[in-house]
Amino acid sequence: MARALRVLVDMDMVLADLESAFLEKFRARYPDEPYIPLEKRRGFLISQQYSNLRADLADKAESIWESKNFFLDLQPIPGAVDSIKQMDSLKNTDVFICSSPPRKYHNCVGEKFAWVEKHLGKTFVDRIILTRDKTVVSADLLIDDNPFVTGAEPSPSWEHVLFTACHNQHMEPLPSTLRLNSWFHDWRSILQSKRSLN
Amino acid sequence: MARALRVLVDMDMVLADLESAFLEKFRARYPDEPYIPLEKRRGFLISQQYSNLRADLADKAESIWESKNFFLDLQPIPGAVDSIKQMDSLKNTDVFICSSPPRKYHNCVGEKFAWVEKHLGKTFVDRIILTRDKTVVSADLLIDDNPFVTGAEPSPSWEHVLFTACHNQHMEPLPSTLRLNSWFHDWRSILQSKRSLN
Repeated sequence: MARALRVLVDMDMVLADLESAFLEKFRARYPDEPYIPLEKRRGFLISQQYSNLRADLADKAESIWESKNFFLDLQPIPGAVDSIKQMDSLKNTDVFICSSPPRKYHNCVGEKFAWVEKHLGKTFVDRIILTRDKTVVSADLLIDDNPFVTGAEPSPSWEHVLFTACHNQHMEPLPSTLRLNSWFHDWRSILQSKRSLN
Repeated sequence: MARALRVLVDMDMVLADLESAFLEKFRARYPDEPYIPLEKRRGFLISQQYSNLRADLADKAESIWESKNFFLDLQPIPGAVDSIKQMDSLKNTDVFICSSPPRKYHNCVGEKFAWVEKHLGKTFVDRIILTRDKTVVSADLLIDDNPFVTGAEPSPSWEHVLFTACHNQHMEPLPSTLRLNSWFHDWRSILQSKRSLN
């Protein structure tokens, strides 16, 4: 029998709504500073776009997600929790949660584990892979909002499914990249088409 | 050019001396309880052997490594820090630190990141892969004291190098498994022999 289809699912902006929480908390903490509404977010890195807006805003932006409980308190992306549980219940399917912690990891890494336990349960805590390099994780699919997932492995085994987020919604995916616009779109077909190739 | 040789290095009992710290703290906290000297440790899981000694000792054992700062305060395994830095400086060699957090992750995961920063520096923080399933990480070598590294992938890409620890020193490695007795033994030759096969 062929091995199970292995799916890596990113956390921020795929399972957990980091962008909405960031904007709300940034505006609350810095009410007199300019900000970027979600519909104007461009580029994967929030800090880069805020830095472009005004150089000193990058530090202020970073202070938001470096705060205690920022990651723990993120709301799930609509449909994410149900979809992951359904995906996990499919036959011959192994789901892993694959997330890259920010460089200032002190609050974040423990909170990512706690977030998964809170929203998905202990079973999924065992399926967390924290790595800043996802190219060295072997899988069939990686569902991720980062349009450019690169690292030490020049030819990752997974096929990238670009999950739509505010910062990438106007981008055309690379020719090699599938797209999933939300968890209410047809993720089952994407898995099925990959499965039939295995 | 062939891609770089990729080496995964485990943390506990390969980079960080968990067993010595555990025994010292267990004896200090439970001076009236029986304990297992390092030379009598058998089996990968400390809690299993303590449980065999007396059922209620497993919880007491676990309380030691669930304590705040237990992982952060671990001493490096002799030679580990120098060896990893030397390995990283070799041409065409990518070193990743690949560690499995315990199920009670609350203190541990942040402390593992902090331990790496403290002893190896920020560069290596970017090379941490935290996962309870190492079989899905793609590499040439995995240096690990766990004699049985299993998971979702039945045929991991890496070759296992069994790093000697108190609990496995009397075991014969599996026929497919290389052994490294300490960081003062010839890890360079193991890498070199693998490199020549790539």
